[in-house]
This record gives sequence, C-alpha cells and structure tokens, in this order.
Amino acid sequence: MSKILVFGHQNPDTDAIGSSYAFAELSRLRGLDAEVVALGEVNEETAFALDYFGVTAPRVVTSAKAEGVDTVILTDHNEFQQSISDIRDVTIMGVVDHHRVANFETEAPLFMTLEPVGSASSIVYRQFKAEGRELPKATAGLLLSGLISDTLLLKSPTTHPTDFKVAEALAEISGVDLETYGLALLKAGTNLATKSAAELIDIDAKTFELNGNAVRVAQVNTVDIAEVLERQDEIEAAINAAIAANGYSDFVFMITDIVNSNSEILALGQNIGKVEAAFDFELKNNHAFLAGAVSRKKQVVPQLTESFNK
Amino acid sequence: MSKILVFGHQNPDTDAIGSSYAFAELSRLRGLDAEVVALGEVNEETAFALDYFGVTAPRVVTSAKAEGVDTVILTDHNEFQQSISDIRDVTIMGVVDHHRVANFETEAPLFMTLEPVGSASSIVYRQFKAEGRELPKATAGLLLSGLISDTLLLKSPTTHPTDFKVAEALAEISGVDLETYGLALLKAGTNLATKSAAELIDIDAKTFELNGNAVRVAQVNTVDIAEVLERQDEIEAAINAAIAANGYSDFVFMITDIVNSNSEILALGQNIGKVEAAFDFELKNNHAFLAGAVSRKKQVVPQLTESFNK
Repeated sequence: MSKILVFGHQNPDTDAIGSSYAFAELSRLRGLDAEVVALGEVNEETAFALDYFGVTAPRVVTSAKAEGVDTVILTDHNEFQQSISDIRDVTIMGVVDHHRVANFETEAPLFMTLEPVGSASSIVYRQFKAEGRELPKATAGLLLSGLISDTLLLKSPTTHPTDFKVAEALAEISGVDLETYGLALLKAGTNLATKSAAELIDIDAKTFELNGNAVRVAQVNTVDIAEVLERQDEIEAAINAAIAANGYSDFVFMITDIVNSNSEILALGQNIGKVEAAFDFELKNNHAFLAGAVSRKKQVVPQLTESFNK
Repeated sequence: MSKILVFGHQNPDTDAIGSSYAFAELSRLRGLDAEVVALGEVNEETAFALDYFGVTAPRVVTSAKAEGVDTVILTDHNEFQQSISDIRDVTIMGVVDHHRVANFETEAPLFMTLEPVGSASSIVYRQFKAEGRELPKATAGLLLSGLISDTLLLKSPTTHPTDFKVAEALAEISGVDLETYGLALLKAGTNLATKSAAELIDIDAKTFELNGNAVRVAQVNTVDIAEVLERQDEIEAAINAAIAANGYSDFVFMITDIVNSNSEILALGQNIGKVEAAFDFELKNNHAFLAGAVSRKKQVVPQLTESFNK
C-alpha cells in the first residue's frame, strides 16, 4: 500500500495541525499508511500546544509528488489555493473540514465529512468516538487546542452548541483545566512584538477567490489592538509588498482582541468600496473598528463574498 | 422554523428518490421541517419500488424560491447543473452523496457526508444506524431499491465491500428476498419499447462540464442491446435534437446489458476523438462495445474527464 499524506492548510494554525495529526493517527488505526505533514512552519500558539503535549511538529512539505505520494487527505480546508501546490495532480482520498466548499473538485468519489462546527478537530474527535477508539492523551490535547484556537476558547460565533461538550471531554482526556490551558494557549499566540510586519500579515492568512479577485484575509490575535496599530506604516508596507508579489486584488487584515472579542480591520487594495460595503463601515486612514467580530469565517468572508458578488 | 426541501438530482433515478425520501424522514426525526420533493417524474423502475412499498411519489418541483423555501438538502448529487434550477440562490444546508465533487460551492459551512460507496442510500442507512433510529419498513425498502438500482444488484464495480451487508440488513428490515426483489426491480426499468427515443435518452441522463464542454452522458438498462440498436436512427435524431436544444458539445449514450454486465456506447458530438481516446476504441457507425462497463460514474465519466482535460 502506498503512503498517504494528511495535512491541513497552508499557514497552518492550531486546528490545521491538531486535526491532521489526529486524523493521520485515526487513518493508521483504520489500516492506512498515513503520515501527517504540514504545509508550513507552525506558529507560536501551535508550538506551545505541541510542546505542552510533547509532540514533535509535523515535517513541512510543499509537494506531494516530490514525496513520491499520489494520494492525500485534507483536514481543515478544501479550497485548492489553500492546499498543497500539486493538489490538482493527486488523488484526494478524503476531506475533514468545517469551512464552506469552494474551488474544490475531484475526478472520483471520495470520503468527505464536513460539519458547520467550531473546528475540524471537533469532527475528528467525533470520528474516534463513533468508532469506539481510545484517544491518546497527547492526541486529545492537540484536538482540544485546535478547538480552543478556532473558537477563541468557545467565544466565537463559530462555536457550535455541540463544541462545549467536545471541549469538556477532550480536556478530561488530556488532563488539563479548559480555562487555564485555553487562555495560556491563546496568549502564546499573541506575542507579536518579536515578529516583523511581513511575518505578522502571514501568521494566519488565507486567499479567497471572490468573483475573480484574489482576496487575502489575514488575522492576528492580540490583547491590545492599539499596540498593533502603532506599527501601521510598517504593516502597510508589508501588505503592499505582498499584494505586488502575489497579485492579490485586496488585502484585509483583522486585528482581533481576544479578551473583548472585537476586531480592527485594516484594508488595502483595488476594491476598498466593496470591503466598506461588506461591513457597512468607512475606513479612516485605511482602518475601521468591527464590533463583536472575531471570526474570519463567519463574520468576514461571507460578507466579503456577498459584497464582491454584487 | 422555515421549511427545508430535500431532493436528489434531475432525472431522478431510484437512488435519488430513495435517498432523499429517507433523508427527509431522518431530518424530521432530527427536528427539522423537511419535505422530500423530486426534480422530475420518477422512472418506471422507481415507480415499481414506490408501488411495491406503498409510497406515493414525491411531488415534482423546479424551483425552491417558487416554493417559498430558501434552504435545501441535496442527496445523490452535488453538481449544480444536476440540481434545482435556483440552487445558486438558496442555502445548501447539507449534502449526502457518493459522487465526485465538481461545480459545487457554498458561501457558508454545511453538513456534507460523502462516501465512495455504491449508493447514496447506503450512506443514509448508516446515518439512521449511527443514531440508533429504527427504519420503517417502507423506508428500508426504498433505500434497498436505491442501492440495488445503482449497483445493478451489487454487480457494478461501484459496489463497495460494505454494501453487501447494507443490502442484507435492508432486505431483512423491508421483508424481501434480495435476489428476487432485485431482479424484479431492475427488469421494471428495462421496458424501453413503450418509450419514444426522446424519452429513452432522458431516462437517466446527466450533464458534466468537462474542460468547458457540456457533455451529456445518458444510460439505459436492457436485457438486449441489439433490440435498442434497432432504433439507432430514431435515437440519433433525438440526440441531435437534444444537442441543438441544450447546447451540449457531446452526447454519450450507454446501452447497458444488465444480465451480462457490458455496454454499447453510442456517441455524437464535437469531440468524438476525445470520446474514442477515453475508451481506447473506435466508433463504427457512431457506436462501439465496451466490455465489462456498467458504471457511468466509475467506468465512463472519469475516463471522459481525463481525455477531455488532455
């Protein structure tokens, strides 16, 4: 049997790493020769989780073919532009995800399990449970970290009613206190001062194809929005460089306050009118406040999609 | 709570009707206000199954909005051109399917359960079972009919190893002998003599977008390929009329011998060279024999897709 690579999206976040790590394990239990890999270096938040549970970061790959692999399983994403570079040349055996479906197609039938829940990790947890398989402590810890990260400790509107029980169960298996560990994990991801502006806008960034436009939507978590905005000039220079280098039509940068659950939106690009219409606000000096917004998936991308399609 | 429509693909076959009927029932058990509808009149095979189990055919609709509905669940398909006319204007809450994914996208996350098994009905059966819900006899009968129909009584290469046990369990619940009922069901669908050529090429037909071409692939089941070919002139006239009326680039017509598990392929259109390359055969008088081929999904569409993409 030939090897199967399991991975989350580019610019992996904690849910991408946690869900792919656990799903590779589940796939091995099901009899497949599956290896977890990552499409980029882990961020500081994920590094905290891996360190806490004593797990080595998955090795980074950029091409399946270069690894001699022609079958892959995706977690926490489905859109091709967020996936491995040669995704169109390989067979997609399975997908476990909690995002919308777009820019995704296959030549043959596949396993695809999508649920509109708080994290891909929640779905992987349910599959372990449905099959009556025991979750190792570290695996449970990484799934819990994925869920905490994606839902900002169950506070994001993307949190599904079922996620609270999932978090409880995973906290128990992994032997941590949910609130204490959760806050420590999220805080580990807010250490932005040591990052260059170019790193900042790439910590958690995804490209969306909106009505023919390549729109980059990046997000950073912080406990102090003003501190990030002090670096606005530097950040704008990095964004403009990224636009020039990658051909993005627009760059939407979310600076999210994880304590008060709000975001500041900084946007540059060709369709600023559409960005403003999406959120019914006016950018001043290229940025504006978006009260209550913490979720890119639920509070930013659908609004942009609708506005760009008008 | 507003009403949700559940339906299979256009030109519904027995799996489209069986899976949507049962999934609507499951959705109601889950607390949703779900109604099964169909995107076309049922064929003779499906009518046999409905009659056998005493179920009325779902009413036919062509637009969700016209029904005052803005949320839908799809079974046995995902490609938009096979779905309800206003699929792009409604919210897709869920998909249960066993086909490849293509021409499908959503604005928001959804429930999507795809498995590469013999029928969408198999997947719906598994969901009833996973939730510990009892299957009513008629519902089990329709799911069984969907599985028999799509796998030609478990003989098609699309049959999944797990489908044999699913068929056994469903036959027991619905109180039929699998072989006896299965053959009677399939034979009910081979009564082609009473059909006009225009009806014949539309009994089980789907459009695929292959590298910018709208390729229509239709299939009829028979116990005598020669009998169908006697009507070749009439069938070709109907195909050419369908091409002219609908802008298909090509029309591939599978005449499948359900007893010996072979097909004759009759093809007309602009890309005949690509069709011939797909199957490595030469059409003579527009048709050729394809030994062992009974599955459009596994033995025809992937081959066409690869050939058209070259």
